[in-house]
Amino acid sequence: MNYIKIFAPATVANVSCGFDSLGFAVDAVGDEMTFTKTAEKGVKITNITGADLTYNIDENAASAVIKKILNTANADFGIALTIHKGFSPGSGLGSSAASAAGAAFGTNQLLGDMYSNLELTKFAMFGEKVACGSEIADNVAAAIFGGFILVRSYHPLEIIKLPVPSELRVVAIHPQISIKTKDARAVLPAEIALKDAVTQWANVGGLISGLYTDNYNLISNSLVDIVAEPARKSLIPFFDDIKNSATKAGALGAGISGSGPTVFALCEGDVVAKAVYKSIEESYKNTGINFEMFISKVNHKGIKIIK
Amino acid sequence: MNYIKIFAPATVANVSCGFDSLGFAVDAVGDEMTFTKTAEKGVKITNITGADLTYNIDENAASAVIKKILNTANADFGIALTIHKGFSPGSGLGSSAASAAGAAFGTNQLLGDMYSNLELTKFAMFGEKVACGSEIADNVAAAIFGGFILVRSYHPLEIIKLPVPSELRVVAIHPQISIKTKDARAVLPAEIALKDAVTQWANVGGLISGLYTDNYNLISNSLVDIVAEPARKSLIPFFDDIKNSATKAGALGAGISGSGPTVFALCEGDVVAKAVYKSIEESYKNTGINFEMFISKVNHKGIKIIK
Repeated sequence: MNYIKIFAPATVANVSCGFDSLGFAVDAVGDEMTFTKTAEKGVKITNITGADLTYNIDENAASAVIKKILNTANADFGIALTIHKGFSPGSGLGSSAASAAGAAFGTNQLLGDMYSNLELTKFAMFGEKVACGSEIADNVAAAIFGGFILVRSYHPLEIIKLPVPSELRVVAIHPQISIKTKDARAVLPAEIALKDAVTQWANVGGLISGLYTDNYNLISNSLVDIVAEPARKSLIPFFDDIKNSATKAGALGAGISGSGPTVFALCEGDVVAKAVYKSIEESYKNTGINFEMFISKVNHKGIKIIK
Repeated sequence: MNYIKIFAPATVANVSCGFDSLGFAVDAVGDEMTFTKTAEKGVKITNITGADLTYNIDENAASAVIKKILNTANADFGIALTIHKGFSPGSGLGSSAASAAGAAFGTNQLLGDMYSNLELTKFAMFGEKVACGSEIADNVAAAIFGGFILVRSYHPLEIIKLPVPSELRVVAIHPQISIKTKDARAVLPAEIALKDAVTQWANVGGLISGLYTDNYNLISNSLVDIVAEPARKSLIPFFDDIKNSATKAGALGAGISGSGPTVFALCEGDVVAKAVYKSIEESYKNTGINFEMFISKVNHKGIKIIK
């Protein structure tokens, strides 16, 4: 194989109760990346469209990952990379994760599938470090494994792929404001009340149980975040309005995607998802803040080969 | 129905990572209770064996629950109760919970099965309040529902019954020392680090995922408690020795049952369970502290009708 074109999905991390532990991949939104083998070793970025990202090999999440894998594998070839960003960096939808995960996946294909998904996740985490300063696993694991994932442990890294009820849909709104991950981290408390922690892990248990049993009611009851959301929601203008609009229209629940500003809502079925989309759109269009929205299935397969 | 004899199981609450949220019922150990309809209204305790418990109707967890249910149901009969305790109060194995849950179940049978398991759990929680001062659900729900349970929420009360892998066994050791629930609560921190909370809820997610998928390795990896166990283990003499003996002999994990002093170990299969039993016994017999032990399957059915 000398060439591959892939789709690397956007991802929603945290998923209300599962702060720093849960994530899922989206079907409708993501990046396209191409990887072409070159006789010359090393990585070249030949084109980036859709967003203004660095061409510096060691600072771009995708090329940094490719370089690391090619070195680790002692590859006798290089890679020429193109990236078409299908969604905005800084949206809270795992932009750097899509680039890093896509890079790991594409490179592995050109290497003849040397590495497991867990190993690819580790390589992609290096890309997250390049982009954001820390080796966060939830977005990259969701992009690589697809579906819902649980980061059970970092040391050693253990990723659990969870089932996805077939009617689960996601509606997302991206208010066009900028939140730095660093700022979103800074508002979080260093400590939380033990009783709040208990509430949160009972909801994690409920959400995961709901995913295994297709129990939408239980998923809905469990989509509650009393830890990160109360601290972060003030960073997102009209967050409560979005959430109320979503739940009023029948969403199972809504919360902050990653560190925001995107807000996601989970829904059972297309009809409800469309109603939730309209309800959120209606509530946000008079705020004076530009926004983008999408409806999507949950992506079960992770990164997809286009060509 | 004018008479019923039941078995109300001992239960293990918390289950390492699931502090105040998870519990499971035990097959081999529990109380026997009989309920006889009387023409005279109200409750009488006619006999208590196996432990020194109060005959005061409003202070005994079982009779207090029976009284409450009979009043709520506006029953036209009374109940004469006998209790044979099969295990010690104060062991950390849900002694008051077995009494309270058994009382709720037995009374409901004589009422012609008026109430759901969830309603019976609420009645039994009143018994916990009578016995311990707070309406804790994890032990009583495990006794009533059987198997593994998750207390997803208290307000409203939502109990999720989780699956139990068929080879799951429990080994328990009860050092004959006394720990008051109040003291075990007092050593807990009011606040915990957010990063520790994340670790804990990722393990709750892993444990529940392992139960759904019969993944003993994942169950083992997830049986970690970095919140309550570090604070409480000093209350249990030779706790680390017990735990090391259990894991060395192949246990999936070990932890404090409820607020102790009983320590439980989960194992895959009878052969490992027997080896774990012997290993713990060997390590504890020279401590100078008296102890009791048992091996059991996880009880899938909750309270059982004997006659």
